[in-house]
Amino acid sequence: MNDMNISRPFDLLNNAIGKPVLLKLKGNKQFRGKLQAFDQHMNVVLEEVDELEDGKKIETIGKALIRGDTIIYIAP
Amino acid sequence: MNDMNISRPFDLLNNAIGKPVLLKLKGNKQFRGKLQAFDQHMNVVLEEVDELEDGKKIETIGKALIRGDTIIYIAP
Amino acid sequence: MNDMNISRPFDLLNNAIGKPVLLKLKGNKQFRGKLQAFDQHMNVVLEEVDELEDGKKIETIGKALIRGDTIIYIAP
Amino acid sequence: MNDMNISRPFDLLNNAIGKPVLLKLKGNKQFRGKLQAFDQHMNVVLEEVDELEDGKKIETIGKALIRGDTIIYIAP
Amino acid sequence: MNDMNISRPFDLLNNAIGKPVLLKLKGNKQFRGKLQAFDQHMNVVLEEVDELEDGKKIETIGKALIRGDTIIYIAP
Amino acid sequence: MNDMNISRPFDLLNNAIGKPVLLKLKGNKQFRGKLQAFDQHMNVVLEEVDELEDGKKIETIGKALIRGDTIIYIAP
Amino acid sequence: MNDMNISRPFDLLNNAIGKPVLLKLKGNKQFRGKLQAFDQHMNVVLEEVDELEDGKKIETIGKALIRGDTIIYIAP
Repeated sequence: MNDMNISRPFDLLNNAIGKPVLLKLKGNKQFRGKLQAFDQHMNVVLEEVDELEDGKKIETIGKALIRGDTIIYIAP
Repeated sequence: MNDMNISRPFDLLNNAIGKPVLLKLKGNKQFRGKLQAFDQHMNVVLEEVDELEDGKKIETIGKALIRGDTIIYIAP
Repeated sequence: MNDMNISRPFDLLNNAIGKPVLLKLKGNKQFRGKLQAFDQHMNVVLEEVDELEDGKKIETIGKALIRGDTIIYIAP
Repeated sequence: MNDMNISRPFDLLNNAIGKPVLLKLKGNKQFRGKLQAFDQHMNVVLEEVDELEDGKKIETIGKALIRGDTIIYIAP
Repeated sequence: MNDMNISRPFDLLNNAIGKPVLLKLKGNKQFRGKLQAFDQHMNVVLEEVDELEDGKKIETIGKALIRGDTIIYIAP
Repeated sequence: MNDMNISRPFDLLNNAIGKPVLLKLKGNKQFRGKLQAFDQHMNVVLEEVDELEDGKKIETIGKALIRGDTIIYIAP
Repeated sequence: MNDMNISRPFDLLNNAIGKPVLLKLKGNKQFRGKLQAFDQHMNVVLEEVDELEDGKKIETIGKALIRGDTIIYIAP
């Protein structure tokens, strides 16, 4: 799917499956990883995840389910 | 559509599709970008996004899905 | 409509359409502007908006959609 | 209605229509005014309102719609 | 009703109608008063209320409707 | 019921009825008491309750209804 | 089930039943334990739990029901 075809916000997530994304969370937390799954609450599963706090990597995680309600934005 | 035709708040978003908008979020965060999509939760997709914190640009993002529940206001 | 006719809280908003209102938000933020539209979530569109923080004007905005869940009160 | 007749919490609000009430809000904010209207979300309209912060009057407002979700208590 | 008969949490409130209760709220606020009414959101009406902050009485109120969502616990 | 039989989280609460539990709440608050009742919102009634703050006992309560939305965890 | 088969976020939890997981919560709290059960609110039951705060173990718990709404992420 060409990413010009975004008419609903979650199309961005559909287009990003299998690709690297950046997540910014409330409280200066960030995650970088490959998007594996998401649901209508914006809960997401990332693979090969770097967890950053105030810009510094604090943890490397194989896979994580991140709750949607802590997310500020997701960028492909 | 003439923007005098706003009778419901989300008409403002309909009128702003494809145009630059300013988003202010809780926690002194701002985003400037072109509005590509939105839904009934006020989740939005912006393109060519500048992320600002306390007025200073901290990140440039090609495209981002921003959660509606972190938004204070959207201005076209 | 005479504003003595308020029997439900949102009648105040109906009466204020097209008129100047003051909005106080959580976090010492205020907006002054003309009320153009509102919905059942108290999301509002203001025109010719002054944004104030701790009583000082920090931004002038032509038009803004302000989320209802950040509002403390609306005064006509 | 005799105020001994309160069997549901919102009966207190029904009994207080047209009478002075005190509202305490999250964040040391208080409002004193005459209760004009309320709804099931505890959104209220007050008339002839004094807005107080930490016990000091900071604003006098003719009429205000105050969101229910910021309220701690309402006392007639 | 014997208070051994509590099989659902709100039975505690049913048993406490007309009796003194202690309410602890978020933000070190407490209320002591006689429970007059409650609803399924845990909104309560207290009579002859002492409002305490950090353990010190700051206000005496004849009657108050207290929102359920600010409550930590209610003790008969 | 053998506590290996937990297939849904609330089975833990069913198994703990009549037994001592530890509750940790947001804001460094803890409660220790005997679990008497709970509902689907995780509202619980405890008996013979010790209330602790930062690990120190600050109150002893005969019985308390504690709101589910302030709870971090419940341990039998 | 092979963990490549994650098409919905909660599949990650299904795959992790009976296995060790790491939970990060709001407020620098972490839990490590074996996942025994979960529900659609992301409420989880862990066994043989270490509770950590700012990276230091502060409590060892046999079993705990942890509320979903305090979770930032769950990693198998």
